[in-house]
Amino acid sequence: MKIAVLGTGTVGRTIADRLDGLGHDVSVGTRDPEATLARSEGDGPTVAGWLADHSTVRLAAHDDATADAEVVVNATNGGGALAALQQAGAANLAGKVVVDIANPLDFSKGFPPTLSVVDADSLGEQLQRAFPEARIVKALNTMTAEVMVHPDVLPEATSVFLSGNDASAKAVVTELLESFGHTDVIDLGDISTARGAEMYLPLWLRLMGSLGTPTFNIRVVR
Amino acid sequence: MKIAVLGTGTVGRTIADRLDGLGHDVSVGTRDPEATLARSEGDGPTVAGWLADHSTVRLAAHDDATADAEVVVNATNGGGALAALQQAGAANLAGKVVVDIANPLDFSKGFPPTLSVVDADSLGEQLQRAFPEARIVKALNTMTAEVMVHPDVLPEATSVFLSGNDASAKAVVTELLESFGHTDVIDLGDISTARGAEMYLPLWLRLMGSLGTPTFNIRVVR
Repeated sequence: MKIAVLGTGTVGRTIADRLDGLGHDVSVGTRDPEATLARSEGDGPTVAGWLADHSTVRLAAHDDATADAEVVVNATNGGGALAALQQAGAANLAGKVVVDIANPLDFSKGFPPTLSVVDADSLGEQLQRAFPEARIVKALNTMTAEVMVHPDVLPEATSVFLSGNDASAKAVVTELLESFGHTDVIDLGDISTARGAEMYLPLWLRLMGSLGTPTFNIRVVR
Repeated sequence: MKIAVLGTGTVGRTIADRLDGLGHDVSVGTRDPEATLARSEGDGPTVAGWLADHSTVRLAAHDDATADAEVVVNATNGGGALAALQQAGAANLAGKVVVDIANPLDFSKGFPPTLSVVDADSLGEQLQRAFPEARIVKALNTMTAEVMVHPDVLPEATSVFLSGNDASAKAVVTELLESFGHTDVIDLGDISTARGAEMYLPLWLRLMGSLGTPTFNIRVVR
């Protein structure tokens, strides 16, 4: 499939790497490709270096990456999600499956971050309202990037959640998740259920602190 | 141990029944014992009927129930927690382990409820601030009453979380949880980590809706 992954951070690169390895035709979207290629990342690997190791992945502006994609993955940070999708363009997103992985984390008051939207709304719903013709599916936001795409790094099967208004879009995402190795995909319901998946993040952050690793996930035992 | 369980709802009765069965000396606290005994509960069993089946459990006003207890369990609904502990009395709570099971659910806007406190505060912290000499431990609020006290109704071991400022109080609660059958007690950290445990509730509620049962729990796989 032609898939656009919006966001060049750890989550975006990890998803893009996995999709590329599974044989998909992957474009990675960024606000300004030239600036992204020129950017140093402190001690971490640069996007330019990462691209050199991923010769079949294309870096492009959000709208260019999205234009001919069949599936779009929002792997930006939550604060930049709306702007990234706006740059991708409502016309480019119309009718497409948009997997929203982002969490609306607000680091302005330090660590652990709070959520910039809670309770009676969610980032998933905000994106669905902003792009009513896109088929938003919230997924994968409840685990670290490595576990998203290689759930078998954990010793037992764990659960992944879906929220979205469009059953056929959720079926497409379920197939992608299963291709990553997920075996327990739980459909929470319509996009308003993204409130639950997003509000789990504060517990996830405290668990990371207590366990001393982000490499964990929850299994719903029933 | 002498244990006061504040609250005569399903959670309070379920906890009291289990503690009584384990041989503890259990008092159940309520605002007005005479009114509670006179109350019909719609189609459900009355408190008076429940007490008739639990001859070794004593019903008492919150302060009376708490006065000589070694451990206090707050099993009121979140909206009534502060008032119940106020009636129990700061002097009666001073120095004692207070297990806070309540969730700050706000049903005023319908179902599913929102949370009346989120993000930079939690009910657990509110109670700790209101009763600085009590040793508040948030626990068990992340599962249905039956699973709290009989985790082995589920086919696999699941996780239970602790939040509190006092290590020895958490050790007391850990022992109680293990006596219920819990085998994976995760200490999240100080009482501020109750934010994480409480903000999980919206996901729990959506899972209940999706799974069609409250009889489930999460296992942290790491």
